[in-house]
Amino acid sequence: MSDNKGVRRVNEDLARERANCSFDVREITFLLDGGENNTITRKKIEDFTLTDELLSDKVPDECLSPKEKYENAVRKSCLFGKLVKDKLLEFGGLETFGPNSFVLRRIADAFFKEISPLLLHLGMFVPTILGQCTAEQQSEWLPRALSMQVIGTYAQTELGHGTFIRGLETTATYDPETEEFVLHSPTLSSFKWWAGGLGKTVNHCIVVAQLHTKGQCHGTHPFIVQIRDLETHQPLPGIKVGEIGPKLGFNTADNGFLGFDKYRIPRMNMMMKNAQILKDGTYVKLDRHGKMTYGTMVFIRVMVVNEVAFNLAKAATIAVRYSAVRRQSEKKPGEPEPQILDYVTQQHKLFICIATAHALQLTSDWLWRTFSGVVTDIKHGKTDSLPEFHALSSCLKAISTSDAALLIEQCRHSCGGHGYMMSSNLPLIYSFVTATRTYEGDYTVLLLQTARFLIKAWEQAEAGKPLTPTVSYLTKYFKDGRVPWDSTSEGIVNAAYGVAAGKISACVKSIRNRVKTGLSYEDAWDLTTVQLVAAAEAHCRAVICDVYRSEAVRLTEKSSPNVRAVMRQLTTLYLHYWALERIGDLLRYSAVSEEDVVALQQKYEELLALIRPDAVGLVDAFDIRDEILNSTLGAYDGRVYERLMEEALKSPLNAEPVNRSFHMYLKPLMQGKL
Amino acid sequence: MSDNKGVRRVNEDLARERANCSFDVREITFLLDGGENNTITRKKIEDFTLTDELLSDKVPDECLSPKEKYENAVRKSCLFGKLVKDKLLEFGGLETFGPNSFVLRRIADAFFKEISPLLLHLGMFVPTILGQCTAEQQSEWLPRALSMQVIGTYAQTELGHGTFIRGLETTATYDPETEEFVLHSPTLSSFKWWAGGLGKTVNHCIVVAQLHTKGQCHGTHPFIVQIRDLETHQPLPGIKVGEIGPKLGFNTADNGFLGFDKYRIPRMNMMMKNAQILKDGTYVKLDRHGKMTYGTMVFIRVMVVNEVAFNLAKAATIAVRYSAVRRQSEKKPGEPEPQILDYVTQQHKLFICIATAHALQLTSDWLWRTFSGVVTDIKHGKTDSLPEFHALSSCLKAISTSDAALLIEQCRHSCGGHGYMMSSNLPLIYSFVTATRTYEGDYTVLLLQTARFLIKAWEQAEAGKPLTPTVSYLTKYFKDGRVPWDSTSEGIVNAAYGVAAGKISACVKSIRNRVKTGLSYEDAWDLTTVQLVAAAEAHCRAVICDVYRSEAVRLTEKSSPNVRAVMRQLTTLYLHYWALERIGDLLRYSAVSEEDVVALQQKYEELLALIRPDAVGLVDAFDIRDEILNSTLGAYDGRVYERLMEEALKSPLNAEPVNRSFHMYLKPLMQGKL
Repeated sequence: MSDNKGVRRVNEDLARERANCSFDVREITFLLDGGENNTITRKKIEDFTLTDELLSDKVPDECLSPKEKYENAVRKSCLFGKLVKDKLLEFGGLETFGPNSFVLRRIADAFFKEISPLLLHLGMFVPTILGQCTAEQQSEWLPRALSMQVIGTYAQTELGHGTFIRGLETTATYDPETEEFVLHSPTLSSFKWWAGGLGKTVNHCIVVAQLHTKGQCHGTHPFIVQIRDLETHQPLPGIKVGEIGPKLGFNTADNGFLGFDKYRIPRMNMMMKNAQILKDGTYVKLDRHGKMTYGTMVFIRVMVVNEVAFNLAKAATIAVRYSAVRRQSEKKPGEPEPQILDYVTQQHKLFICIATAHALQLTSDWLWRTFSGVVTDIKHGKTDSLPEFHALSSCLKAISTSDAALLIEQCRHSCGGHGYMMSSNLPLIYSFVTATRTYEGDYTVLLLQTARFLIKAWEQAEAGKPLTPTVSYLTKYFKDGRVPWDSTSEGIVNAAYGVAAGKISACVKSIRNRVKTGLSYEDAWDLTTVQLVAAAEAHCRAVICDVYRSEAVRLTEKSSPNVRAVMRQLTTLYLHYWALERIGDLLRYSAVSEEDVVALQQKYEELLALIRPDAVGLVDAFDIRDEILNSTLGAYDGRVYERLMEEALKSPLNAEPVNRSFHMYLKPLMQGKL
Repeated sequence: MSDNKGVRRVNEDLARERANCSFDVREITFLLDGGENNTITRKKIEDFTLTDELLSDKVPDECLSPKEKYENAVRKSCLFGKLVKDKLLEFGGLETFGPNSFVLRRIADAFFKEISPLLLHLGMFVPTILGQCTAEQQSEWLPRALSMQVIGTYAQTELGHGTFIRGLETTATYDPETEEFVLHSPTLSSFKWWAGGLGKTVNHCIVVAQLHTKGQCHGTHPFIVQIRDLETHQPLPGIKVGEIGPKLGFNTADNGFLGFDKYRIPRMNMMMKNAQILKDGTYVKLDRHGKMTYGTMVFIRVMVVNEVAFNLAKAATIAVRYSAVRRQSEKKPGEPEPQILDYVTQQHKLFICIATAHALQLTSDWLWRTFSGVVTDIKHGKTDSLPEFHALSSCLKAISTSDAALLIEQCRHSCGGHGYMMSSNLPLIYSFVTATRTYEGDYTVLLLQTARFLIKAWEQAEAGKPLTPTVSYLTKYFKDGRVPWDSTSEGIVNAAYGVAAGKISACVKSIRNRVKTGLSYEDAWDLTTVQLVAAAEAHCRAVICDVYRSEAVRLTEKSSPNVRAVMRQLTTLYLHYWALERIGDLLRYSAVSEEDVVALQQKYEELLALIRPDAVGLVDAFDIRDEILNSTLGAYDGRVYERLMEEALKSPLNAEPVNRSFHMYLKPLMQGKL
């Protein structure tokens, strides 16, 4: 399963770890890929794509200025786009995955250390045309977009408005005289801000604006707007567009700002699948509008969970391999320095990362299947399950991005100083994942949306009404009293649901008590939001524990005993880790005793020791190629120090022995002549 | 107290917040500065220094490549160094602070967004000469170092060795024939790695190497090594030196690598205050060696706690001011969008940051005073208190850097997408503070050092022996049984000590049980390290709670009632926050009841509401000038959106409407001609 094609020797410690692994690494790779055939296809595509000379940068991207990084990213995006169009589309395997599939995103990570400026063209512009345009409009825009004549992005967020979409200020006012919309940015805070590719790359943009017609505002709607000349790429008159400047990450995506000075677009540039403006300015709304927008939002959240799981797998791979290579200190006087992976504190930091990567991926796969059912239902007009699924996708997006970001930093910390090197790739992985915590729904806002659903569900349970599957536990636990405790995996999952029920119950009490003192429900809710966020977190944690455990059992039904054993160890580790992290909740809402707590801790420490010999095998099973991992610390061959030095020598500062600043400033300072 | 000298209007929301503040902001500034006179002097120095034209970069640093950033930093360092030398040394106020004082570090933050390449010259090179050289050696090196003829850094860490100093591989072998040391790097992993300024800037370097003489190794010792020619700046023959490449932060400090090929230095370049090599190669050791090295380590840790407190204060200032300006959503239908500072979840994220900045600063001031006592003792040969102080400084460094880093990220998250902009300055503040968690002693390693001390103290308590002050609580709590609970501040502090005692006790039991099964003490210790880290954290948390509470009381004895009230609210908030965060520990080790927990939560929420009207006043009281804060979101005038746009327009990508990559790649792709 080695992806290392070179002749270099593999680090001896890593080789020994691999020889001692208890299971066949390929078996877990197949499980995670969803079957051996998927793995074979993926690897074929990777072999085919990643040999391209495009991959190697003579000067590492992180040594460039943001402008140079952008220019390099445009070059690579175009060549990558051409590669996908010319070659991969002919490649049989793509049928399995589809052009927007995760395999392509995986490969793209090898091309772009940060992100492609064209990402939102295929990721948002084209899908929104598919989702929001009439058939007639699609036939106009889709061919031009797919052949890359029209390159677009999606601009919704404004300088002064993000989460609260109803607060957007950009206006699109219909003028029946000319049958045009007039787009306008009335204030500085109404400037569009953030859209990827908007700054310098795209020539079109989907703009979300407040639709005004016949003196009335009908709320926000999407419009297709040409912003640059197709021949010269100059911004069109009435358009103010530019790049928003450096960010923590995403520095190769030229996120942009956009303002309109009474800029006119044809009536038919409104995306009219869900609402229309007739020639005379009459507004016609179709009722499926809101539901379908919901659907897109859920789809994106599912994708986000999948992506952060993959990025956490990258971080875990880097940190575990490095920990097998790095030696430090002595456990007993005179003994040789042990691999740092042999320290229990290091195992405590890292094995939860492997388990969480599995947990999030299996939960996102499960979500994907569940969601497919929902989509079919919606198409047939049945939208009952949408609120539940929306609540679930909201909290899963919030918790998975937050957990993954924290654990990726934990991986970086576990690599000591070397984790701070950009060439470890851990800082870039973090900068990407921490952004997912905010975009497409901020952590706190999403958990409060879930909490809203949970409180409603609680009230239904109280009223004796039936509940949808993911909250059915509330029926069981809505009465006061502690959940019974048993220390099996099933018992821990049950207790986690009991904790969630207990916390939701406490919120209900808190709100009702506040209402009794004369507060409005809204004020009482607002004052309880700290607890509501925690309750939604507890609910989500219980669902992840439950789904991870049951999916791991289901997937390994036909596995070899050793694979079943190690997968079982990981799920048990995850459950114990979170039981111990939330021991205060368990003590409050379950019958767990002090002896049980001590036993949980002991069992957790035993699990670390059991997993230790398989740790390298487990990260190898993620099967992330060196080109995608892009890390001096995490490469398959474990030649950590050689790679660190090689990367250092590429720094432009090392191209000349003496930097000009010596002659200009340092020497005059030394000689007192400055 | 406004530092905004311009004519621009202050944002109306911020102006109203300031008008409604319950206390005189200056009073808290004086408290934090250690008295009104200190504030006056600091502000004089700031006024004097920060008007310099040096401060303004036409192109923001984050738009440059790392190489360009470095060159700009050398320019500024030299001009800043000249400013300090020429003008500030004549300035009366500096006597109060000393040339290495924190006020200068504060000002330096306005000059360098990251760090000066000369930082370690004054920060490590000069102090090590003072601490490790004989008087004769000092008279040779100090004048040249202070006049900047000799520019140096400190190189200890190697590519393959950090924490475990005994494992360093670089050798210094004495040759009595020529009375020289031969420095050598026997392996790639023995290359020095990380020293700031080493890559391109310095001409000298203190090198820590294994001293060999007469066929025997005497462990690591420091040597002064010239590495570059003073005239040409070329690396000298036998020296391999360069820059280590891009990092998460510190990108203006040219951290470097350094290898020796049998490089010779004179005998007298060994720093000989604590150990000497005679001409014939005889090794002579003076016994104070180890103790003084201890002292330097502690000194640096105290400085680190002070620095992270200041950086957390910066982040809190940025996030609180932004939260007063930003408006979002609606609490009740039809109402105007509230300031996001009015959301309880936002208060929950931010007010703990203000309290923690106070807690860490007051604790570091207290440490400073305590340490001064210790230094005097050591000079008189009394070193009994050193182990306690070392254990305390270790855990405080670990916990304060870790807490500050987490809370700075929390501030960034609380600013939504705009916190992700480099111009918010929050990413850079984080990149700086997260490094402090690793350097000068990694988090886990330091907590385990503290744990070692705590277990010994526990055994002494058990044996009925007297304990030093910071662990005297163990005498009280070393028997089993829960600590009584009362919800006053004193009660919570007591319970925190009880928790620490309970966790240390559990570790002792765990280790002893493991020894009973036949394990060696070292193995039993090793298997218990996850719990030991948690116990050391609990000990440190109790000390911070205790010191913060008592210092705040002491400092506000003569304050006005309103200042006393708000400072009291903040300490109470801190205690409640941590009681709730560690509620599982309290339930296990104290007599706290479910009703008490509910009451704690309610009190905590009430405190948020009480602090809310004073939040802006509290961050204004940190009195961090705009030039030092360097943030579009956090400036005193609150003109957030204007500043975001102004900064964006400085991006070099915006200097031309069409980037060349359009003609080179995008247009050919659009036209199918790529």
